[in-house]
Amino acid sequence: MESNLSSRGARIAAYRGVHRTGFDMYIKDPFNKENNPQGILNFGNSENKLCYDILEERIQLEYCLSKASDSLAFRGVVARGSSRGSPRDHGEEERMNSTGPAQATSKLSRAQANCLTPELLQYSDLQGLRGFREETADFLTEYCRAPTPLNPEHIVVLNGCTSALAALTTVLMEPGDGYLIPSPYYGGIATYTWLYGEVNPVPVPLDSKISRGKGYPLMLAVDKLEDAMSEATKKGIRVRGLILTNPHNPLGVVYPAEVLMDCLEFAHRYKLHVIVDEIYMLSVYDGKAFTSIHSFESLPDPERTHVLWGFSKDFALAGLRVGTVHTRNQEVRRALIRLASFHSCAGPTQQLLTHLLQDRDWINTTFLPSNRRRLLESRAILVKGLQDIGVSVLKSSAGFFVWADLRSFLKEQSFEAEMDLWWRLIHEKVFISPGQVFSSCEPGWFRVVFSDTVENIKIGVDRIKKALGAPAIIAEKYVHHHAS
Amino acid sequence: MESNLSSRGARIAAYRGVHRTGFDMYIKDPFNKENNPQGILNFGNSENKLCYDILEERIQLEYCLSKASDSLAFRGVVARGSSRGSPRDHGEEERMNSTGPAQATSKLSRAQANCLTPELLQYSDLQGLRGFREETADFLTEYCRAPTPLNPEHIVVLNGCTSALAALTTVLMEPGDGYLIPSPYYGGIATYTWLYGEVNPVPVPLDSKISRGKGYPLMLAVDKLEDAMSEATKKGIRVRGLILTNPHNPLGVVYPAEVLMDCLEFAHRYKLHVIVDEIYMLSVYDGKAFTSIHSFESLPDPERTHVLWGFSKDFALAGLRVGTVHTRNQEVRRALIRLASFHSCAGPTQQLLTHLLQDRDWINTTFLPSNRRRLLESRAILVKGLQDIGVSVLKSSAGFFVWADLRSFLKEQSFEAEMDLWWRLIHEKVFISPGQVFSSCEPGWFRVVFSDTVENIKIGVDRIKKALGAPAIIAEKYVHHHAS
Repeated sequence: MESNLSSRGARIAAYRGVHRTGFDMYIKDPFNKENNPQGILNFGNSENKLCYDILEERIQLEYCLSKASDSLAFRGVVARGSSRGSPRDHGEEERMNSTGPAQATSKLSRAQANCLTPELLQYSDLQGLRGFREETADFLTEYCRAPTPLNPEHIVVLNGCTSALAALTTVLMEPGDGYLIPSPYYGGIATYTWLYGEVNPVPVPLDSKISRGKGYPLMLAVDKLEDAMSEATKKGIRVRGLILTNPHNPLGVVYPAEVLMDCLEFAHRYKLHVIVDEIYMLSVYDGKAFTSIHSFESLPDPERTHVLWGFSKDFALAGLRVGTVHTRNQEVRRALIRLASFHSCAGPTQQLLTHLLQDRDWINTTFLPSNRRRLLESRAILVKGLQDIGVSVLKSSAGFFVWADLRSFLKEQSFEAEMDLWWRLIHEKVFISPGQVFSSCEPGWFRVVFSDTVENIKIGVDRIKKALGAPAIIAEKYVHHHAS
Repeated sequence: MESNLSSRGARIAAYRGVHRTGFDMYIKDPFNKENNPQGILNFGNSENKLCYDILEERIQLEYCLSKASDSLAFRGVVARGSSRGSPRDHGEEERMNSTGPAQATSKLSRAQANCLTPELLQYSDLQGLRGFREETADFLTEYCRAPTPLNPEHIVVLNGCTSALAALTTVLMEPGDGYLIPSPYYGGIATYTWLYGEVNPVPVPLDSKISRGKGYPLMLAVDKLEDAMSEATKKGIRVRGLILTNPHNPLGVVYPAEVLMDCLEFAHRYKLHVIVDEIYMLSVYDGKAFTSIHSFESLPDPERTHVLWGFSKDFALAGLRVGTVHTRNQEVRRALIRLASFHSCAGPTQQLLTHLLQDRDWINTTFLPSNRRRLLESRAILVKGLQDIGVSVLKSSAGFFVWADLRSFLKEQSFEAEMDLWWRLIHEKVFISPGQVFSSCEPGWFRVVFSDTVENIKIGVDRIKKALGAPAIIAEKYVHHHAS
């Protein structure tokens, strides 16, 4: 049949990825304790399912404030600049006691609370609402420990860091260009940059052996960047950038400050753009120090340094689709703002998040400590469960996942065997992502997401155990089922 | 200075349009009766500012339902399938009496009302939430008078029709390809398809004289499509599609059924994709019959026919960024769903709109009649005001704007003189769009948006009057001011 699509349309339509296949199967048959207990457990998508109660309470409150009579006082949004302690001051202590109207310390006027001012329902500043950018700048300045306040004019708001990565690589790189990225890396990045902008990753392989006598397993070092750079040049690939995810996905580790600075200096030598995705910056759960790019006194190449952060991970709100780009490069911002028509996010959503960011009291004493405590707990349950069935994991400090070593469960040390194991897992109704999705250089590693209830994790571990002992299965029947 | 951007990034960053310039100036200095009465009045953006009160009440109610105690009954969302009269049954009568809790006829369970089920806060079906697609299909079936129910699987949800047009043209056309579009046409279309996908409009000029002895001024006919097609072919442009906006923007007219069918058959002969943007389908205010593509018993080429509709215009909710594509072409849908990662809209927003669409009682007895009555009223005030200062307008039946004839106010019949007049209008703090933004073939036409309060329209008319009598001004000072 004659194709109706353009060549790029056909390329986009034909794209299939393992992760997407798993997610599509999950969407059709999602696990639900009450309604679908035999459905697929999703330990594949990096989403935080641990804080719905806290979020629902806070967000419903937000939306309902403007309906409330003025005589009602609500749990207060702390006024700008006042009573803002560092989030670290509160440690891991959790204060779960709901502070209802009776305990309120401040009142919210209708004007502050109303999420539905007319402007929000109509076209607005494509860079992002000014108030939202101001609040984001203020928030990042504090939580990233920036030596000087971030400028709200340097921030562009888009509908998620997915879009931000796609738009950024498009305006920075030509079709066919490449960017360095330490591997394993979050596979979505390659998809987003290729589907949209036709640019490609140039993996910088990290392996599980400790490199040249220093550091820790899977650590990045500049010599590895140099090797990958010269390798790419030999192949005729023009490398235009370096993408770092810090905290790392899927490894769950944070980059030491000196490694980050080494990378920035390396990039400066080669005139590479650096995109640092800090989307997990508040999801550090074992007390490890996180170093933001914003914390450096000066940058080797500020015009080529671009930092992403969003609400999907740290605020467990992936469904709201909000990401931000911070860049001092005016031309890059100008191009991003032009593209923002295609990646815009709703006015009321930006307003809601403005209020959430303003509420430092809620962030510091309720959300963050609860979230960290629950992440730690769920992680411990998963790690213990996996250990009990003979699976060890890399020591992680951040994120919603562990990098699990299932090498000894492969029939042979190959990526085909890894896929066979993946199909066995899906057959047992547990969706996790195989290392090849992350361009792992060693077969047999899997990323297992743990930010789920303890109950679900236990069910998942049982299913993983069953899958590990199961014989090879014929994947085709699933592929057909899926395609039909 | 060495450019840091890719060539496409530089192309995107360098883009300037008159409409964008006006909007950017407006965003920096928006008119506000209380706070900024000397600010710019925005009669340039096609947004409906007439229904904030109705929308705010309805949406706040939605968000607050889940906080309400079960003992409270609210104005009900009519259950699926019951009590759904045709919207035309209600005529233009307005029922503005608020039906508060005391007058409620049905109760909403927490499960129905809750906008914050956990799924909505996390990654969801990229095609659009199933429930939202079902409700949209149901809604379009009814309001477009489709002979058979639309299939929710044929719908893809994106963050606005802007994104939908951009994504559609990308997957249907190669860079450099063209699409036919009757001109004048909404200039944003050219921007969106070019910025994103590098495809270009091939204008099909309509002029204000009645074509070949039949029809009405600025009417489309197949001979004009044929002329433009052969002209483009001579120039070596490969034409891959036809884009129609119905009701028309900026003319505010609706296409007769037979003209639409002629166009579809023309496109079928040339194997062109047809994209029909029906985003103003419910904003028809003078009783004129609107014909949706969905109403045809059969289509000449269903695999190449794609229909857009969204919430920005008909529900006056441009700030929510929600558009839908209906296409029976599976490959096109597949490609759109892949691109949807970049054009996704928030789960809670989809949920909110699902409830809005379900509430046929509110749509038919409150929203639509009030909206039509207010549009008619504002239009009458503007048309009268313009007539009083010697400006006539094309007779329109739909949309938020009139196509105003300012030809006699130009120093000379040229597009330079049109721009001079535009600068004089901006100088008097009123932003409307000159015909060149819409690729008008005659200088001196302007699109004036009237969907604003009567009070603002009167201020705007005074400012327009002042601008029309003013001498030429030096535009550069504004350009510099704007660029600084």
